[in-house]
Amino acid sequence: MHSFELDKKDVQKVKAALAEGQDAIETLLRDYHPSEIAILFEGLEKEEREVIINLLDSAQASEVLSEMAEETHPEELLLNLDPEKRTGIVEELDYDDATDLISQLDKEEQNEILDELNEEDASHIRSLLNYPEDTAGGLMNTRVIKIPAVLYKKDAIDEIIRQSEDMEEFYTVYVVDQKDIFQGIVSLKDIIKSRPEARIADLVVKDAVFVHHDTDQEEVARLISQYNLSSIPVVDQHMKLLGRVTFDDVIDVLEEENTEDILKISGVSEDEELSGNWKEAVKSRLPWLVINLGTAFLASSVVRYFEPTIARIAVLSAYMTIIAGMGGNAATQALAVTVRRISLYDLTDNQAYRTVLKEFTVGLINGAVTGLIVFLFALFFDMNTMLGVVIFLAMTGNLIIAGVTGAGIPLVLKRVGIDPAIASSIIITTFTDVFGFLFLLGLASQLLL
Amino acid sequence: MHSFELDKKDVQKVKAALAEGQDAIETLLRDYHPSEIAILFEGLEKEEREVIINLLDSAQASEVLSEMAEETHPEELLLNLDPEKRTGIVEELDYDDATDLISQLDKEEQNEILDELNEEDASHIRSLLNYPEDTAGGLMNTRVIKIPAVLYKKDAIDEIIRQSEDMEEFYTVYVVDQKDIFQGIVSLKDIIKSRPEARIADLVVKDAVFVHHDTDQEEVARLISQYNLSSIPVVDQHMKLLGRVTFDDVIDVLEEENTEDILKISGVSEDEELSGNWKEAVKSRLPWLVINLGTAFLASSVVRYFEPTIARIAVLSAYMTIIAGMGGNAATQALAVTVRRISLYDLTDNQAYRTVLKEFTVGLINGAVTGLIVFLFALFFDMNTMLGVVIFLAMTGNLIIAGVTGAGIPLVLKRVGIDPAIASSIIITTFTDVFGFLFLLGLASQLLL
Repeated sequence: MHSFELDKKDVQKVKAALAEGQDAIETLLRDYHPSEIAILFEGLEKEEREVIINLLDSAQASEVLSEMAEETHPEELLLNLDPEKRTGIVEELDYDDATDLISQLDKEEQNEILDELNEEDASHIRSLLNYPEDTAGGLMNTRVIKIPAVLYKKDAIDEIIRQSEDMEEFYTVYVVDQKDIFQGIVSLKDIIKSRPEARIADLVVKDAVFVHHDTDQEEVARLISQYNLSSIPVVDQHMKLLGRVTFDDVIDVLEEENTEDILKISGVSEDEELSGNWKEAVKSRLPWLVINLGTAFLASSVVRYFEPTIARIAVLSAYMTIIAGMGGNAATQALAVTVRRISLYDLTDNQAYRTVLKEFTVGLINGAVTGLIVFLFALFFDMNTMLGVVIFLAMTGNLIIAGVTGAGIPLVLKRVGIDPAIASSIIITTFTDVFGFLFLLGLASQLLL
Repeated sequence: MHSFELDKKDVQKVKAALAEGQDAIETLLRDYHPSEIAILFEGLEKEEREVIINLLDSAQASEVLSEMAEETHPEELLLNLDPEKRTGIVEELDYDDATDLISQLDKEEQNEILDELNEEDASHIRSLLNYPEDTAGGLMNTRVIKIPAVLYKKDAIDEIIRQSEDMEEFYTVYVVDQKDIFQGIVSLKDIIKSRPEARIADLVVKDAVFVHHDTDQEEVARLISQYNLSSIPVVDQHMKLLGRVTFDDVIDVLEEENTEDILKISGVSEDEELSGNWKEAVKSRLPWLVINLGTAFLASSVVRYFEPTIARIAVLSAYMTIIAGMGGNAATQALAVTVRRISLYDLTDNQAYRTVLKEFTVGLINGAVTGLIVFLFALFFDMNTMLGVVIFLAMTGNLIIAGVTGAGIPLVLKRVGIDPAIASSIIITTFTDVFGFLFLLGLASQLLL
């Protein structure tokens, strides 16, 4: 079995069926899982999506909407449906998914949808809308299986079956007291295995991992990953059980966090939507480029200082680009390895120290090897041994700076509590530019003039 | 509840207890979850880890070993235990975790451990050692709950309870025929809810998602994430059920793949271990730096071509560094956004075309804005309007090149079936260096001499 990928052939089949009429498209859609239809939607026009959503039953339509990529704007599709259809779909959605969709709309549109719902669903969703998106409360689903600790085996099983009626899947049963205060967890397996006269209170695992509603989503993801949990209970400040976050939400969070890391290290604001338009992209990237321009002026002031040297030995400007470019790339290498390492593991002071030392050694060796190549080039092409020596030394020195700053700066940032990924390549390459020019032009002024 | 992080205070407490003696350390360890002990190990010496592992019972020790970070080398810790203790621990491990550990050892050491095990465990692990690490077979656990489709409700539940005796958790029950051929899945909930005379064959969900043992791990991760599965069955070519891959293994795969993406885009070999020593780092990065050196010679040959111009207007070399540096960073921005977008979504031809168009626009605007700043600098600092115009045009042109190549090259690579992350910043910055110098020095030769 292969994961479903957007394929032109599938899209064309759907478009052909749409042209043919309702029967054709209904027959065709039977071959696709809702999460596959959600992917197909990426290849279809807005109007085509509307036709298809209207042909699906509420259960299928709700699954499609909850699986659609953000960039295909499922919330707009939902908003444009006629009210009755829409209410049916929202009632089928899990509360967390419904909240995610509705939160993308403005207040007025939110109320338009919520006012049509039954009171219970509406109040569940309204309360979820209050939690910030990136907290456990914003991620959680309020539909859980929860049973009172006082129940006996038989009643507990009946209660679990009753509660699981409208749930697709559940992994763990949560145990509460009379006031809904979280007591612990119990597995369905342990209930079934127990003696007939067993009470839930005897079976409950009390030191279960849980989070508060305001716990940051990264923390929730780390806990689920660290303790291999399929779901984690969410409680309020009085330990009242509010809901649960499941592993599939956490997989989404991890993808999101990884996107942020890769963007920040490349000097892109973490908020830039990957599929955003050019206006958003300019807003997200221009500030970084202006910062970069400031640091570039700094590096170019070094070059200006040595202008007389360059005027006399113009070929230095050709080597300048090589030394600076190599330094920038070596720094990016050290930066990527270090930032990723920090985000996966915690490093002790000793490990941090050894990391910088390692990058010093790597810079020394890579600098010497590539410096030697450029030395030989200067020797045979420019017929100038001393020029070669200057370049060799500048390259080696700059690659050492690259390694030490590429690893050292994110480690220092982490130590003082700043996100290390902010040490983007833009910041790091300033060091390698400035030092690269200083080494090359400074040595040239001393040794070649 | 907070996720457990390595804390000097915890490490010191453990070291103090170790110095005090066996009772003190045993008392202290009771406060920690095995996955927390695994993290504590990162702050301890090899000998201290050995003392602690020997004090834990087999169940706890096996959990600690399976949660230890690769860089702390759990397999060596296992190897150094006395044979009896070691056998007890391996027997407690899930087969997939045992295989992961043992696969890190050389053949002789593997046999030393496997020969001590009971025949069943040894043969399970030996067969798992044959699957490549990055396939479903390499990820799977052979311990599953599987029941024949012919069973009636009562016998099925008894069988599930029997099989789940030595399993910590299970999420789905797999259904097979008499020859172990995979038939589908059934949830424990549905079995319990069914009438007493129900047969499993009536309850089984037949179109369950499954994978073959040789399916790539990225594909397994995508399926689990796409269909929100807590586990996925693994079958051989005859549809015989071999095992299952669970969501927690997939979370690890996602972290791994994301590390590879961030490394490749930064010009680091995907195989470099984050905590590897300097020799591994040199081996992984030097080849990329040599490639970069080749492309840097290309860029510097443009500069050489214009050497007479630079000799006459030496200040151009100061602006060269600005234009090239800005181009490189703008290209890295466009590259990061595009590579990440490709790895999360599939883009149609139309979307790919619009992405390049968007980056053209972003480059035009960011280039014009930053170009204007540098123009003003040239005007007021160097008092040279025409120089300012040349720089403005070169900056704008180069940031357009940056956007178009940063987005276009990974999209083209993806289209022809090459991993788009290979379009690392090293490749992309060659374009911005070459075109930046061409624009700046070419225009200067025409307009300023």
